[in-house]
Amino acid sequence: MELIYGIDIGGTFIKIGKFVSNNNMPVLIEKYEIKTIINNNPLKIINQICDFVNDNLKEDTLSGIGVCVPGPVLNGKVLGAQNILWEEVNLKEILQKKYPKIVITIANDANAALYGEWKYSNYKDVTSAVLITLGTGVGGGIVINNKLLQGENGSAGELGHIKIFPFNGRICTCGRSGCLETYVSATGIVREALEQKKGKLTTLNNYSKLTSKIIFDCAKEKDYVASSVVDNVAYFLAIGISNICDIIDPKLIIIGGGVSKAGDFLIDKVKKHFEKLVFYSIKKVEIKCAELYNDAGIYGCYYMINEELSNIK
Amino acid sequence: MELIYGIDIGGTFIKIGKFVSNNNMPVLIEKYEIKTIINNNPLKIINQICDFVNDNLKEDTLSGIGVCVPGPVLNGKVLGAQNILWEEVNLKEILQKKYPKIVITIANDANAALYGEWKYSNYKDVTSAVLITLGTGVGGGIVINNKLLQGENGSAGELGHIKIFPFNGRICTCGRSGCLETYVSATGIVREALEQKKGKLTTLNNYSKLTSKIIFDCAKEKDYVASSVVDNVAYFLAIGISNICDIIDPKLIIIGGGVSKAGDFLIDKVKKHFEKLVFYSIKKVEIKCAELYNDAGIYGCYYMINEELSNIK
Repeated sequence: MELIYGIDIGGTFIKIGKFVSNNNMPVLIEKYEIKTIINNNPLKIINQICDFVNDNLKEDTLSGIGVCVPGPVLNGKVLGAQNILWEEVNLKEILQKKYPKIVITIANDANAALYGEWKYSNYKDVTSAVLITLGTGVGGGIVINNKLLQGENGSAGELGHIKIFPFNGRICTCGRSGCLETYVSATGIVREALEQKKGKLTTLNNYSKLTSKIIFDCAKEKDYVASSVVDNVAYFLAIGISNICDIIDPKLIIIGGGVSKAGDFLIDKVKKHFEKLVFYSIKKVEIKCAELYNDAGIYGCYYMINEELSNIK
Repeated sequence: MELIYGIDIGGTFIKIGKFVSNNNMPVLIEKYEIKTIINNNPLKIINQICDFVNDNLKEDTLSGIGVCVPGPVLNGKVLGAQNILWEEVNLKEILQKKYPKIVITIANDANAALYGEWKYSNYKDVTSAVLITLGTGVGGGIVINNKLLQGENGSAGELGHIKIFPFNGRICTCGRSGCLETYVSATGIVREALEQKKGKLTTLNNYSKLTSKIIFDCAKEKDYVASSVVDNVAYFLAIGISNICDIIDPKLIIIGGGVSKAGDFLIDKVKKHFEKLVFYSIKKVEIKCAELYNDAGIYGCYYMINEELSNIK
């Protein structure tokens, strides 16, 4: 069996997918999560990965390891990843030394997730796609002309920091205000609910601690405050998406991250607003929900390894 | 002498530049303007161009004609150009039939202007650049990885229609509201001044009809209302630019169009706001004023012809 490991290093867990290929398509045969050791010595995490891989290989043949990290990556080098305390780490070089005979790829996690969600969807043949991840924060990845857009500072796709309010916007963790992230991330949705429910009779008052899931559930049950919150969130997200489309006019927009589990209940509202917001000549864009959710990163890592292996053959 | 014509078809005038090359650099030897014949038969304008070229050739050798038009272009075909009443016109094919032995290129006018301003500036070697034109409206062109970004609907770079106000924004000619164009175009600047000067003592009241040039001139003379108008315009423009940078992280932003004649007086204010608005990791972007103004289009047409000729040689 020819194995490919897809490894997604997160701030809480390292997700590891053990894949084999069937006609160039990924078959996930096993999935593991191990707790991330947060330490400013990057070798801690690297050793976690290598120990795991070595322990699990048995008689299988390993053909590639794809890794994605929560930070910008350039030519296999991680430029920094704040929430795992990494500064610059030449991750590709380190792993290649440990496994000299196999293919190693390193990617940013949002970019890997974009590959996972795009290449294993019905839209795999489109050449321009954008992933917006709605989680604790808002991130993104962009593909143009079939190529990941890195940007001059490795910072293309900072979609959470598009300004949608010019004045009196909410303060963002980035230090600025009015950022999209403060309105459509999981925390932004809770913020919107806390603002809207003040002094109102709503089932949201039954919860001592709100989450975006509770808010969507209450909206689905037609609670009027929760419905108004979700509609505002959909509108703000549609503004962000229409701005992206007015600038780069892509074919496909994928909404990922935990919030996207709201599914078509959210997407249908976003589309309704989007059609009224985007420039009239931009019509053919598809907006869809992510399907792989937290597995998108490991699938994207598989994709990148498989591509490299196909190029070698 | 080997001639290259650069021709910019505008709604009022057709600008024609007669170029020769000196070490692959353009030397503009003559420049003409002829009044555009607006007619839904595109042959009217095409014949204007051909008659002019034929009358002026004399014994010179013509090696290329580059044309730019105010509408989207795909593979030499103009998809439509409302303000000269054109629907789809296969301009390249028509011109190539008339001049079978020379190189013909067709481009969108903002894209041609981007080439002109970028390739004949000190930044000619950067591989990602954005042109924002501030005229009656706001247009734009984008280059990523050294390639013009067309977009899935030929509509990438609709920078005037980025929304910067989510609620109660100004109504735009596109039918939507809150578009950047309504705040930073020449007409947007006049709108801002008319709103701000109400009931105030200002030298702006001395003019029966305001223009953006008058407003900038009064601001330079430290009129407090005009200064406040210019500062708001700079802030709104900085929001638009920071949104573009958060998405595509380019190296160079060029501000063109009539409003850019305000020069560093405007750009310095834009930069000051921009630094506070853009995501922190995006630092190396250069923001500069256009230098070729209305000639950018014809220089861009020259550039595209010269590139094709270099590829042939």
